[in-house]
Amino acid sequence: MLETVSTTKIFNGTQGVYAHESELCQCTMRFAVFVPPQASENHRRLPVVYWLSGLTCTEENFITKAGAQRLASELGLILVAPDTSPRGPDVPDDPEGGYDLGLGAGFYVNATQVPWAVHYQMADYITQELRALIEANFPVDPEAAGICGHSMGGHGALTLYLKNQNLYRSCSAFAPIVAPSQVPWGRKALNAYLGPHEESWRTADAVHLLTDHGPSDQPILIDQGTEDIFLDDQLKPHLFASAAQEVGQPVTLRMRDGYDHSYNFIATFIDDHMRWHHQHLIKE
Amino acid sequence: MLETVSTTKIFNGTQGVYAHESELCQCTMRFAVFVPPQASENHRRLPVVYWLSGLTCTEENFITKAGAQRLASELGLILVAPDTSPRGPDVPDDPEGGYDLGLGAGFYVNATQVPWAVHYQMADYITQELRALIEANFPVDPEAAGICGHSMGGHGALTLYLKNQNLYRSCSAFAPIVAPSQVPWGRKALNAYLGPHEESWRTADAVHLLTDHGPSDQPILIDQGTEDIFLDDQLKPHLFASAAQEVGQPVTLRMRDGYDHSYNFIATFIDDHMRWHHQHLIKE
Repeated sequence: MLETVSTTKIFNGTQGVYAHESELCQCTMRFAVFVPPQASENHRRLPVVYWLSGLTCTEENFITKAGAQRLASELGLILVAPDTSPRGPDVPDDPEGGYDLGLGAGFYVNATQVPWAVHYQMADYITQELRALIEANFPVDPEAAGICGHSMGGHGALTLYLKNQNLYRSCSAFAPIVAPSQVPWGRKALNAYLGPHEESWRTADAVHLLTDHGPSDQPILIDQGTEDIFLDDQLKPHLFASAAQEVGQPVTLRMRDGYDHSYNFIATFIDDHMRWHHQHLIKE
Repeated sequence: MLETVSTTKIFNGTQGVYAHESELCQCTMRFAVFVPPQASENHRRLPVVYWLSGLTCTEENFITKAGAQRLASELGLILVAPDTSPRGPDVPDDPEGGYDLGLGAGFYVNATQVPWAVHYQMADYITQELRALIEANFPVDPEAAGICGHSMGGHGALTLYLKNQNLYRSCSAFAPIVAPSQVPWGRKALNAYLGPHEESWRTADAVHLLTDHGPSDQPILIDQGTEDIFLDDQLKPHLFASAAQEVGQPVTLRMRDGYDHSYNFIATFIDDHMRWHHQHLIKE
């Protein structure tokens, strides 16, 4: 059951926000879907890109700030932007009040630890429950799905892609956390959600996934601003580039001179990512 | 004296937010300026478009939601987006707590009434103080300025343009309040800021300005969504179109099927307005 929170016309398509009762997350979850005009013009099923947002974001940030709908409307891409964590009065939050754990910081993993495990099942939520809901309710081609994200959501896109190559045919990221096991944001979150045994973190870490599972059969696109204040301490994209080179994973890592971590950076390069996904999703 | 609050790279240009002590508004005022890459490439002075936002907005809404920087960067347009009212602990607000008077609701007039007159001098602020500050601190061509706005800011753009044709060479608006003397938002604000004598409202009403002063020497572009919930009660663009026809003012009023009052509507058509201003500002 899908509840329509709002729909608005934009670039001749429809930007909707929807809510549903999530079985996996055991709470009401919201997500945003942009449907381009091609959906009504010819009743065909369209390629879809899942966008995973970063820390503190909801389903709103991407749809109001990235400007992705303009080109998606032209190319005929459906865009899906879920929330970044379970929400609601029963959902636990960081006891220290941080922005980097709990609400707005689900890290796209399936939590195994108390008190997180009951609600924080974001990996399966994105790849299974949300995906099935989208395929049942929107005119997407289930064979033509890509995944993309920013920061914590870039981590989500890389890890969910590398673990589920049968589900996604293209992957790209803006300023992703590529090695959560090695940086403060990631260590705090994985320790809380998955427990102190670092072996259990390996399948939630893009660098480890590359090393443990080998390359995917598609190239990966990453854009990273050089003036991003999180670059050296939290993001470390060179760790992913090195691991990729070792295992033979094609990666295009573009260091973007002067850009920061914000949606100004995302807006500047979102068209490149839309075209990247579209090219990979429409090819025979 | 200009204080830089923030600068961010976007679309190869610079999106800045600045603060200064306003003499006219007797408070600290903020405004946003986008400078495209052409400014540093050839040291020439560039055309500038002033954007006036609507009720409840600050200098932030336009620069984060409209997506105007993409085409402005390509065309070489400087964009200036001021706040919508004076701000600060000494600045009076609507005693009824409404969003349509006081903070965020300056209506781009010079208030004459107690307690508003001390700070609410938004008409002269936009056309004189801010303008001088921009011309002194940014590489704008003072002979090539346009004005544009949304809702209350569309009212601001139309009225300030019609009263100051020596200052602006192009004018456009999204869903403007065209006849504030005849609608609830406008009547509340003009009564408070200018007092109960409606004759004093005439120079703050675009329809009256057309009738009293005759046409400008440039066409005016207006976009209006048909699903805008404020269309019938607050905006009434046909009143402007009728007055324009009577006095011989060329107006292009485009009713946009299915669009609402939000930034989704603005984002969809902002490129048209950027091109419109650019065409009028660069012609010999």
